Amino acid sequence: MRVRWAFEEVGRRYDVRLVTFEAMKAPAHLARHPFGQIPTLEDGDLTLFESGVIVLHIAERWPGRLPVDADARAGAIAWMFAALNTVEPPILDRQTAMFLERDKPWFEARLAEVDDRIRVRLDPLSAYPDGGDWLDGAFSAGDLMMVHTLQRLTMSGLSEKYPTLIAYIARAEARPAYRRAFDAQAAVFAMASH
Amino acid sequence: MRVRWAFEEVGRRYDVRLVTFEAMKAPAHLARHPFGQIPTLEDGDLTLFESGVIVLHIAERWPGRLPVDADARAGAIAWMFAALNTVEPPILDRQTAMFLERDKPWFEARLAEVDDRIRVRLDPLSAYPDGGDWLDGAFSAGDLMMVHTLQRLTMSGLSEKYPTLIAYIARAEARPAYRRAFDAQAAVFAMASH
Repeated sequence: MRVRWAFEEVGRRYDVRLVTFEAMKAPAHLARHPFGQIPTLEDGDLTLFESGVIVLHIAERWPGRLPVDADARAGAIAWMFAALNTVEPPILDRQTAMFLERDKPWFEARLAEVDDRIRVRLDPLSAYPDGGDWLDGAFSAGDLMMVHTLQRLTMSGLSEKYPTLIAYIARAEARPAYRRAFDAQAAVFAMASH
Repeated sequence: MRVRWAFEEVGRRYDVRLVTFEAMKAPAHLARHPFGQIPTLEDGDLTLFESGVIVLHIAERWPGRLPVDADARAGAIAWMFAALNTVEPPILDRQTAMFLERDKPWFEARLAEVDDRIRVRLDPLSAYPDGGDWLDGAFSAGDLMMVHTLQRLTMSGLSEKYPTLIAYIARAEARPAYRRAFDAQAAVFAMASH
């Protein structure tokens, strides 16, 4: 979804090749992704793995979603790293717990602790999209990454206490580029369930 | 340490301003870092937070530690993201458990599960620095980030089963730039303990 959204934001067409769980661990895919995961990107002779660098590559290769000024650009990229390395880790920790630790005796007690760590991130973050629409000036690849990270919390109810973040996510989801990416992604799931 | 090492690799001098735990949460520092953490970088008018983008900025601003060719450069940056977003999360999960969950009834059982998740990352990674000295050609900011990530495992004993990774870390630690950064960092701790 991150990669689709990034392509839509810069107005580029892309082709999608779906990969089965089995194919992800096969040599052809491992040559593209050392850890056997998705997504990967093929752009001419370049093959990339890791959604962070793929979104960064798209935003650097085509104009519109990173500032032109070098300092402002670094600031937007800082928000990408903040999304991935400061905000997302406890959120992924929660998702891992929901998937893998639900039947463990420690599940509920630990979940409460993980949720506290998530709130430590959301508290300061919620002050940011308040002044303007986005984290730092115009919508950037940093917002794309942050919104997608925050969307992982939708089912948890944790973000509901932060009206500025809820509004921020809603603004992003109202973007035509987001809608196009979402519809394309939803179509894949609909197709796969037939 | 990551930022010191990056500066040493590109041969730039830098000044260090230490920040107390109290100062980290004060307005002056929060203006530099929304989440009240370290490190931050000040370079002319630019202020950056997040070690990932700081190392990326240093490696892009001064030559030597990212390939010049655009595709090769993207590949090196992919390894930076892989270090931070694929390899480091379960390692940080382990560190968090060691710090915050040691006295929990679930500690030992959960640690074993986290260790399994770490091995799932180390298994494929260990194939990489084998053919050459580094992950992908010459030493890059991707190696810097990966080595520093793997160093977090030193006390765990988990990396000992991977001779190629142990040798890879040792090669990085033998670099003069690493030694200079390490000595400078150690001097701070020595000073602070007086």
